[in-house]
Amino acid sequence: MSYFNQQMVAWGSSRSAIREIFEYGNRRAEEIGRENIFDFSLGNPSVPAPQALGEEIARLAAYEDPVLLHGYTSAQGAPGTRQAIADELNRRFGTAVGKDDLYLTCGAAASVAIVLKALVEPGQGDEVLVIAPFFPEYRVFAEAAGATLTVVPADEDHFGIRISDLEARISSRTKAVIINVPNNPTGVIYPEKTVRELCLVLERKSAEYGHPVYLISDEPYRELVYDKAKGLPFITHLYKNAVVCYSFSKSLSVPGERFGYILIPSEADDSRLLYAAVCGAGRALGYVCAPSLMQNAIPRVLNERPDLTVYRKNRDLLLNALTSYGFRCIPPDGAFYLFMQSPEPDAGSFCKKARDFEILMVPSDSFGVTGFVRIAYCVKTEMVEKSLSAFRKLAEAYGLGV
Amino acid sequence: MSYFNQQMVAWGSSRSAIREIFEYGNRRAEEIGRENIFDFSLGNPSVPAPQALGEEIARLAAYEDPVLLHGYTSAQGAPGTRQAIADELNRRFGTAVGKDDLYLTCGAAASVAIVLKALVEPGQGDEVLVIAPFFPEYRVFAEAAGATLTVVPADEDHFGIRISDLEARISSRTKAVIINVPNNPTGVIYPEKTVRELCLVLERKSAEYGHPVYLISDEPYRELVYDKAKGLPFITHLYKNAVVCYSFSKSLSVPGERFGYILIPSEADDSRLLYAAVCGAGRALGYVCAPSLMQNAIPRVLNERPDLTVYRKNRDLLLNALTSYGFRCIPPDGAFYLFMQSPEPDAGSFCKKARDFEILMVPSDSFGVTGFVRIAYCVKTEMVEKSLSAFRKLAEAYGLGV
Repeated sequence: MSYFNQQMVAWGSSRSAIREIFEYGNRRAEEIGRENIFDFSLGNPSVPAPQALGEEIARLAAYEDPVLLHGYTSAQGAPGTRQAIADELNRRFGTAVGKDDLYLTCGAAASVAIVLKALVEPGQGDEVLVIAPFFPEYRVFAEAAGATLTVVPADEDHFGIRISDLEARISSRTKAVIINVPNNPTGVIYPEKTVRELCLVLERKSAEYGHPVYLISDEPYRELVYDKAKGLPFITHLYKNAVVCYSFSKSLSVPGERFGYILIPSEADDSRLLYAAVCGAGRALGYVCAPSLMQNAIPRVLNERPDLTVYRKNRDLLLNALTSYGFRCIPPDGAFYLFMQSPEPDAGSFCKKARDFEILMVPSDSFGVTGFVRIAYCVKTEMVEKSLSAFRKLAEAYGLGV
Repeated sequence: MSYFNQQMVAWGSSRSAIREIFEYGNRRAEEIGRENIFDFSLGNPSVPAPQALGEEIARLAAYEDPVLLHGYTSAQGAPGTRQAIADELNRRFGTAVGKDDLYLTCGAAASVAIVLKALVEPGQGDEVLVIAPFFPEYRVFAEAAGATLTVVPADEDHFGIRISDLEARISSRTKAVIINVPNNPTGVIYPEKTVRELCLVLERKSAEYGHPVYLISDEPYRELVYDKAKGLPFITHLYKNAVVCYSFSKSLSVPGERFGYILIPSEADDSRLLYAAVCGAGRALGYVCAPSLMQNAIPRVLNERPDLTVYRKNRDLLLNALTSYGFRCIPPDGAFYLFMQSPEPDAGSFCKKARDFEILMVPSDSFGVTGFVRIAYCVKTEMVEKSLSAFRKLAEAYGLGV
């Protein structure tokens, strides 16, 4: 046995449920050509960043003093950048966010990892509750912070939240509940009624236990919503002990740049201490500041929205076609993921079979649910169109829709 | 008592030994004007990034496909970027680094935090050894990873390493020794003879305990060396279980961009498992990839070196003047820090006194040594020149050099 942290070795070696499929796709592309592979495995935005962002980066590189442009900012982020983000939130959502309620991060993964590190007391039996299906890194971040992950089983009818199932799993040890809106991997936005019920449960439980049960709202896909009516009230309007994790990865198509924020609302209990804990957790995890060039560029492009045309078109194409071939699909409200039921119980085996037709999808097992697959349709529409006959053959291989 | 992680609250609240001085400087600058403050508190490079970097960023923003430019890379970094860094290392240092020995990070702090998380087994009594004076975040990263920090007392004559003192503090629980070359806060480069002795001790101890004692070489200031003859052999030539942490923050004057790497040499015991542990630790701490724009830009500017003219000039000015005023200074071999003995035992009180002359310095207490101050001379030369009469008055206030 090697002499270092075995859990890290395990997490480093198992990284690749999704990555492995992606690597397989790369090998296969070399054999038969990229244009003949239908790779729906990775959530890498296919829509280019807004032109205004590229122009702003080029302008800053040419005209801004490089010492300021590339210099350290304060650990929580440059005050002007935080103010711009606060103003934008307040304008859109009627919140009263101040710049000192925001902590800028290196993306949504960092946001969630930092918040969990700030909240969880290791060795105290703290639990973090997630609702299946869920982004698999939540488990890693929660366990790395010293908590146990408790999973609320999926509502396989609509992939909402079965409130009674959730309530039954909350205990005095529950430090936080994580929700992901819109959800990765289903694309579902929980109905407002459900979220309001969830918040009432958390309020009741907080009162019962005499300490807050925090709600962590992970919102990297917030701007990727197909039906405006599905837009939820901003979560801090519904629950005071809600912490919002955000990233510009998807809204500006810059996932590699690692830029996001944590919002600790001033209404939260002990909010200044919680903010200090977030600063301490960021420090402990080795973050120094969010990338400074992005901090400088973002205030000028905050109003930019991703062009959803492609994602919407891809969603409609896939949803209509796959349903007509006899697959059961969960209609996505947002993000760029389609959740589809596997026609055999073992989704892994179904995904292997799909490879015969050069289709790459991710089995739902990574997300805490069996029997489904995630189709990431952040790809070129031509690829979606070309893939449909392959999906049809796959359906036929399972005797669907005939 | 608040209900979240108390250690994080403490680390988040105490962030500011150095920051507090910096904030004081800002307040004072508003009162009497920035030009009348001699602020030597922060290690923020004052030399602009090489023009070639700005040009490359502008070129990429204008001509590169934004989906590739800003997209996710693999967690360990884009293969081409890693290959370019490996080639450059091999060319300069005669190493045989492969691209798969490198893991790209969000800067040197991330590099050290990730390596410690990868090495330390929490709850096993692991110890991490540092040599005073040391970068204060080492304590945070080691304790966050679940280790205890053991401090080798400073060699106050030359701020080298007293090998016998170090050897006496190594035990079977010592997981790693961290060295910082050139050192922050002293600017000292340990003599080659000392480092060779250190490596021999680590080899002997590793053999004695039957497991490696890792050497973590933290080298963000590697390219900031005033006397070429002081350049050390690359550490992996001297010790196989050495892990190198690097950042481009200082070499390219881009500290806010958060970009660096970890080198896990293939000679290290179980090097592939250690690499996996580093990947797992990066994942656990919430890192996804190093910023992609920097990953794209860096291969074109790898040969750029910082213009040391300003730092060297500042060093010479300060070293000569302060010594002539009667202060005892440690001549820096590299970085941009000057370590100076306080004329009274309490360096904090000395720094307060210096504020009467508008001089801002950091007491050595933050670095694990009492009775010294750190002068960060990464500032404009005009400011250094203007500060000298203030330093002279400070010396006179202590009755020095008269």
